[in-house]
Amino acid sequence: MNTTPTRAKPPLRVLPVALAPRRVLLVGAGAAAAQKAKAVLESDCELTVIARAPCDPFFAGELPFPLLCREFRLEDVAGRDIVINATGDAALSHMLWASRKAQGYWLNCVDQPECCDFYFSATTRDHDLCVSVSTGGASPRYAQRIRDLVAACLPQRDAAFYEELRQHRHEQAARADEHGKVYLIGCGPGKREHLTLRALQCLQCLEVALIDALVGEEVVALLPRACRRINVSKRKGHQQFAQEEINAMMLEHVRAGRTVGRLKGGDPLVFGRVFEEAAFLLRHGIVPELVGGISSFLSGCLAGGIPPTLRDASAGALVVSAHLRETRFNDDWIPLLKDFPYTLIVLMAHSFAGKIEARARAHGISPGLPAAFVAQIDHPAQTTVIGTLGQLEEMARHCDKPAILVIGKAVAHALEMPHTGKRIVLPRPESCVESFFQK
Amino acid sequence: MNTTPTRAKPPLRVLPVALAPRRVLLVGAGAAAAQKAKAVLESDCELTVIARAPCDPFFAGELPFPLLCREFRLEDVAGRDIVINATGDAALSHMLWASRKAQGYWLNCVDQPECCDFYFSATTRDHDLCVSVSTGGASPRYAQRIRDLVAACLPQRDAAFYEELRQHRHEQAARADEHGKVYLIGCGPGKREHLTLRALQCLQCLEVALIDALVGEEVVALLPRACRRINVSKRKGHQQFAQEEINAMMLEHVRAGRTVGRLKGGDPLVFGRVFEEAAFLLRHGIVPELVGGISSFLSGCLAGGIPPTLRDASAGALVVSAHLRETRFNDDWIPLLKDFPYTLIVLMAHSFAGKIEARARAHGISPGLPAAFVAQIDHPAQTTVIGTLGQLEEMARHCDKPAILVIGKAVAHALEMPHTGKRIVLPRPESCVESFFQK
Repeated sequence: MNTTPTRAKPPLRVLPVALAPRRVLLVGAGAAAAQKAKAVLESDCELTVIARAPCDPFFAGELPFPLLCREFRLEDVAGRDIVINATGDAALSHMLWASRKAQGYWLNCVDQPECCDFYFSATTRDHDLCVSVSTGGASPRYAQRIRDLVAACLPQRDAAFYEELRQHRHEQAARADEHGKVYLIGCGPGKREHLTLRALQCLQCLEVALIDALVGEEVVALLPRACRRINVSKRKGHQQFAQEEINAMMLEHVRAGRTVGRLKGGDPLVFGRVFEEAAFLLRHGIVPELVGGISSFLSGCLAGGIPPTLRDASAGALVVSAHLRETRFNDDWIPLLKDFPYTLIVLMAHSFAGKIEARARAHGISPGLPAAFVAQIDHPAQTTVIGTLGQLEEMARHCDKPAILVIGKAVAHALEMPHTGKRIVLPRPESCVESFFQK
Repeated sequence: MNTTPTRAKPPLRVLPVALAPRRVLLVGAGAAAAQKAKAVLESDCELTVIARAPCDPFFAGELPFPLLCREFRLEDVAGRDIVINATGDAALSHMLWASRKAQGYWLNCVDQPECCDFYFSATTRDHDLCVSVSTGGASPRYAQRIRDLVAACLPQRDAAFYEELRQHRHEQAARADEHGKVYLIGCGPGKREHLTLRALQCLQCLEVALIDALVGEEVVALLPRACRRINVSKRKGHQQFAQEEINAMMLEHVRAGRTVGRLKGGDPLVFGRVFEEAAFLLRHGIVPELVGGISSFLSGCLAGGIPPTLRDASAGALVVSAHLRETRFNDDWIPLLKDFPYTLIVLMAHSFAGKIEARARAHGISPGLPAAFVAQIDHPAQTTVIGTLGQLEEMARHCDKPAILVIGKAVAHALEMPHTGKRIVLPRPESCVESFFQK
């Protein structure tokens, strides 16, 4: 099975380059040759094939290159820039290797890395764009998988886009997207891998980014180096901007022809004021693109192993915020908890834990109702604290904000998952209605 | 400004390859030379630099390659496989171009594509993996941007992962992820670009995929060619599987060592039974990975331009389903609509539009309450129909399922966005409480 010599470890670190169109001679017409021919034909290289007989079906029928059905002779290499030996004939490989310098061609012998000046890469193309993946011989199969992943991540562009790119080549002014555009981007709970592909694509073409407090560091790190970052967080210690100032900045930059991104944690549809900002821009003749994200109220449930909907425990989920209009405590939702058949998820609740506990008691809500804080979602310090509505103040002491609060029977069904991180289950108080926690 | 000759359009389709480590001679020590030297040093190529004097700071201090500070002489090319002219000296380029065949080296002259056997690509590396991007000269800047995008999309792996890849090289058995793993994957509303990066990475390593009805075609197309696809949709015309059968299939495949994916539309946390399936697997000793997605209830609001939360209109959002336990109509949520201060989003409501309208009337809910169907989210036929609770049956006739139903004052603030697709606003009935639609 193992006919090729074992390569040194770690494997060769190759130098990826793009060859200008060259004259290519391919020797052989089997399956390996067909694969190489297809790769060469995707370029503007001039291909000639020499083989005793076509073996692979690819070489049957009409071909866009000359196929000479005869024995290969060493003088066939004359005038070729590249020679590929796909016959599997090791003796031929060594002969070609010996004469390559004198004849001025570069050699690739299939499955004989020691007789290769270069290796083929797993490649994906889209118009002018060509992306190739190599593992330095470690695993062609893995290279192909990564190639497929890369192909899926590429922005979908049309021919006109590339035509424009080419026309701007000499000014080096080729920017990939419309100038003077605003993207309102949901950046998810924090980790890069929780971004949507669309968000990722938008982030990487920004020239100005207005960044909210809860946008993850991994996400900010994806911005282009030249992108101007403006922290518009309302957290203590940072410069504060009123909504009107943020609106004015967006308008100023977009009118100056810049690509502007408004980065918000989670999903900007959920308490993100994205519609206010979109309406403002529309009123000023700017049509923004809205990009959704994974909402922290759902990623928090996922992180905590808590099902927001669950047969016989919760037939829906309500998301509210304990914090409206800057600093006001919002407790309008507390009376709903009386016999509420749904899971209630409260954003910005951590600072108000004691108040919520007290008001719920005052409203006669059962203090035994299962409740959980999921804090620092997507951070190394991620913590889930599970207890009851009557223990909220104590629970809040076991974690830091930002945190979501989940209340309802479904919390009693929380699963312990590897991604949960730190997990604290408070001892159930005597007063607790035990039935909530029966499964 | 424009000193290079205009290239033919469309540009050259290059052939991307990975060069085996070769002896490289770099002429010049300016900024362009520094850039090339850095690229070469990332490979195992042997580098020598010749330049009158180091101009770029990169060439100051101790260097891991010989830097000969003298005039370049043509005999310096002897024994080199690759020569790079980074001096900007066009006469030297033409001299090197003329002697390259006889001397057996390949040439790259910076900014002189007509004197290049090959071009450098924008490259990103991670251990053994090397990904390079070229635009065939159309725009090096765009190539760099795509390179950054690709770098952000690559799975984060450690050295041990690549070590294992290398060890399995000869058996071609190198599979990139743990065998016998189950991924429960939220596939979002349908389009590829609405997947999270994590979902995308997981999809592409599956060997078996159990696919729900509402998973988008673009998503299914991302599965590896060899992946076995099992349609477990409950739609008419497809084979039906009970939940127990789906569970049994997951267990069977994962125990056989296969990488199994359970693909669900939207976010599997929202009426996706993902916790039931996770709990089943955990009981059988299998620890699944849960991957969230963009929930259709939020992507529907985004598509329809409807803010689920909005100051003075909606202080929260409740998601329920009109369809529980296979075919039963669920109307438990209808009484809530009386003076409900939140946006209510109802999944699976399209088939029950008439029933919902009638029961809401019976419960004394105002028929003038704004309501919208957002149908066929992420499909070309995507449609938003805006009306009132008293028009639901009529509204449903203007669109097809699958659709989400959004009810509440916030619907009156819906923005007309370019991504909305087809948008129908029904004439307001005389009975409508006008104040809902005042802004």
